Amino acid sequence: MDYRDLFFVDPDKTLKLKDVDPAYKGHHETAEAAAADTARYQSELMSRQSLLYAEKNHSVLIVLQALDAGGKDGTVNHVFAAFNPQGANVTGFKQPTPLELAHDFLWRVHPHAPAKGEIAIFNRSHYEDVLVTRVHKLIDKPTLTARYARIREFEKGLAEAGTTILKFFLHISKEEQLARFAERLDDPERNWKISESDYAERALWDDYTIAFEEALSATSTRHAPWFVIPANHKWFRNLAVSQIVADTMDDLHMSYPKPTVDLADIRRKYHAAEKAEKKQQTN
Amino acid sequence: MDYRDLFFVDPDKTLKLKDVDPAYKGHHETAEAAAADTARYQSELMSRQSLLYAEKNHSVLIVLQALDAGGKDGTVNHVFAAFNPQGANVTGFKQPTPLELAHDFLWRVHPHAPAKGEIAIFNRSHYEDVLVTRVHKLIDKPTLTARYARIREFEKGLAEAGTTILKFFLHISKEEQLARFAERLDDPERNWKISESDYAERALWDDYTIAFEEALSATSTRHAPWFVIPANHKWFRNLAVSQIVADTMDDLHMSYPKPTVDLADIRRKYHAAEKAEKKQQTN
Repeated sequence: MDYRDLFFVDPDKTLKLKDVDPAYKGHHETAEAAAADTARYQSELMSRQSLLYAEKNHSVLIVLQALDAGGKDGTVNHVFAAFNPQGANVTGFKQPTPLELAHDFLWRVHPHAPAKGEIAIFNRSHYEDVLVTRVHKLIDKPTLTARYARIREFEKGLAEAGTTILKFFLHISKEEQLARFAERLDDPERNWKISESDYAERALWDDYTIAFEEALSATSTRHAPWFVIPANHKWFRNLAVSQIVADTMDDLHMSYPKPTVDLADIRRKYHAAEKAEKKQQTN
Repeated sequence: MDYRDLFFVDPDKTLKLKDVDPAYKGHHETAEAAAADTARYQSELMSRQSLLYAEKNHSVLIVLQALDAGGKDGTVNHVFAAFNPQGANVTGFKQPTPLELAHDFLWRVHPHAPAKGEIAIFNRSHYEDVLVTRVHKLIDKPTLTARYARIREFEKGLAEAGTTILKFFLHISKEEQLARFAERLDDPERNWKISESDYAERALWDDYTIAFEEALSATSTRHAPWFVIPANHKWFRNLAVSQIVADTMDDLHMSYPKPTVDLADIRRKYHAAEKAEKKQQTN
């Protein structure tokens, strides 16, 4: 099963999130059954990153969006920890600062686009500017429509410059969110993060659903696709995201560069001499 | 054995790298024997990072320097891959660009200093500006001396702002370097990196040794210590660096913040209601 086909947000169709089962598990019944496949994709991520870094022809941008407790941090820590941290950069976009707000909404994002050979992971992104701003009525309808267009153009420009873009919406049910909030309440390593606003945002669930459905449809393209990932089961989310990124990087058909020097010559000039020298020393 | 004491570069003594055995293995004879200890320190790195991120009182800056093939990349990939990539940022400093050269030598470094809650790892660093520049006679003696002072002041400022600084020189023997170069020649995933200049730099080994000895002595302080890590054995290098970072973060005595909301109140207001609602639905 190629999850790129199954979870792709087709811009020519109307996305209805209620049609996607957040508890979907594919052909694996349990985390244990999926573990070997996930490990294989993780290992592919490592080797493909090594090729990407060596070849320096492509770059990769991964965007993660979700409602609170949707699993963005978990995906970073469990899927993308497979990458060598050198060459894979995670940027978390928080509430914009006054300086950032004084610029166009892509100004703070652009500097974090990946260079050739590199992978950038956005934990939240420029999509917040068509999601949270819309739900809280900070922007009007024409601004929203204009921003969809700006995002499409921005991403097209990145793609033309050699960036492979993959965008994931981690889709959980409303019940699963509450269950995850409840887990946090009981966990002293995480309960310091809880605020009333988590619950206030939760009350806007239906507004966020509409905002996501529209934003994803308006900005999913072949060169910058959105995927709706069923994410109630963390192990399935990790499997699906790993597979989609690994398969996509595989399709780049990368190869290691040829040596720029004559290897035989280098061996003769430097290594043979050193061996002789060493031999002489030991005599 | 606290490797912080054993490998610390005492600024009041004259550092002689030939007095440090690059093949040192501590009390472990083999990689297998050290594996459990290294795994324990790695797991401590993960939990301490989580505390660092939560508390947001401290930041950590790790500097890696070594001659070619000394193991900087390997240390990033094997030791610091333990960190959650969100909140641990690796910066590789390459040959400066014309724009960077048009500024003071710390200009390109400062923006990568870690924010509170974060860890920054420098693969090469501002120390290149007192090492490679000195060996290649790009700077004169007064400039070198002035740069030592600038570095000490810069790091003092970071330390005063809550940054814990740890600097590692990965120390390998000249023979080990040649053996690692030879391995690269035979490895199609790495032989594309080989250039004649690697061997040209190798010919300057003694000049680099003097440059490192002087730079480390001139800039090792209690708040920004240098450690000379025996690095012929990669497993020992990984163990020693893991231990030093883990023990140092442990000494920060961090704790999770207290919740800012009344947890019982949150439970009552949001979770009790939801349970009742759910019960009603199932009735």
